[in-house]
Amino acid sequence: MTGDRTPAHPNSAAQHRRYARILRVAARLGARHGLERMQMHDVARESGVAIATLYRYFPSKTHLFAAVMRAQVLRLAADTPPPAPGTGPVDAVTDLLTGASRQLFEQPRLALAMMQANNAALAVGGGPSRGTDEILADLVLRTAGVTDPGERDRRVVRILEQAWYGLLTTVLYERSSPEAAQDGIRLACRLLLGPVLEDSRA
Amino acid sequence: MTGDRTPAHPNSAAQHRRYARILRVAARLGARHGLERMQMHDVARESGVAIATLYRYFPSKTHLFAAVMRAQVLRLAADTPPPAPGTGPVDAVTDLLTGASRQLFEQPRLALAMMQANNAALAVGGGPSRGTDEILADLVLRTAGVTDPGERDRRVVRILEQAWYGLLTTVLYERSSPEAAQDGIRLACRLLLGPVLEDSRA
Repeated sequence: MTGDRTPAHPNSAAQHRRYARILRVAARLGARHGLERMQMHDVARESGVAIATLYRYFPSKTHLFAAVMRAQVLRLAADTPPPAPGTGPVDAVTDLLTGASRQLFEQPRLALAMMQANNAALAVGGGPSRGTDEILADLVLRTAGVTDPGERDRRVVRILEQAWYGLLTTVLYERSSPEAAQDGIRLACRLLLGPVLEDSRA
Repeated sequence: MTGDRTPAHPNSAAQHRRYARILRVAARLGARHGLERMQMHDVARESGVAIATLYRYFPSKTHLFAAVMRAQVLRLAADTPPPAPGTGPVDAVTDLLTGASRQLFEQPRLALAMMQANNAALAVGGGPSRGTDEILADLVLRTAGVTDPGERDRRVVRILEQAWYGLLTTVLYERSSPEAAQDGIRLACRLLLGPVLEDSRA
């Protein structure tokens, strides 16, 4: 379980299906057991792949759950429709993040596993973590209707992302209630995005 | 190393000195080895206490490093002078947080150990985590010159705290540079605190 091997990437259609199956099984087992207690052997068995194959794609649980998070953020991006007409940009982003939070709170062990892995992914070598943060930032900007984001827009969205992760974490570690965190997310969206969106429309 | 024992608290002056000595040793060894590799036996030996005594105060490394963090935040609060005359409240908080960040980046393993422990402290049962976040929030409010904070002030400072932890974490896990994180902290202070401080002066 050393973290310094370079993960393999799926190429053929069959490999892609197998890779996706592994991620689905990991999400299901992670939701039940969390990062620490979930066993890589169980993921391999329930995915119908050899343990060596599993480790070739995911040299550690950190790699595996960072990839689960990336897949979930990609699905969120794919599933998020354009804001309804008449929805302001701050409200649209607020709806996006509070909705995603609600889903995460329904599977708190999986949510914590993904966030711990996403944090540590780059440290263990070449995880997809940077990609995940950027996919989410692009989704937030698109949801806010910012079509040509400048450097400052990206910096602000990065802060919002960090505040969101932090508020989620306080709930997942039972340091605050989901309601208090959702209130915080709404306020963070308003305070952080309000001025940016005014500027970018000026 | 189960986390569900209730930690003892120091009472006598001798116990307080011993407790403080343990925290100093833990900070030194944590800075060298990080949370995972630091050994409780080494902390006991270098503090000159029996291992059973160490575990009575700190049933796990999480309890120990959450207490180290609490002690450092208390020291930061004690060492922070009132803002220099002519310093605006946003600048004063920015100086506080970027200064604290700079100190944390000098000992990245210790910083990460403290933040991981502070996150998990309540989950392992009765850690001082909630206290630490509140001590820091009070320090931020005091530094901003908010003498009678309302509920909204506290919520905003909580978001700033979470954004700060998040930005620190990206550096400690080598996902961004210290400079980028410090820029983010400055921007977060301005965007989050600016409107609040205007309101509280209106």
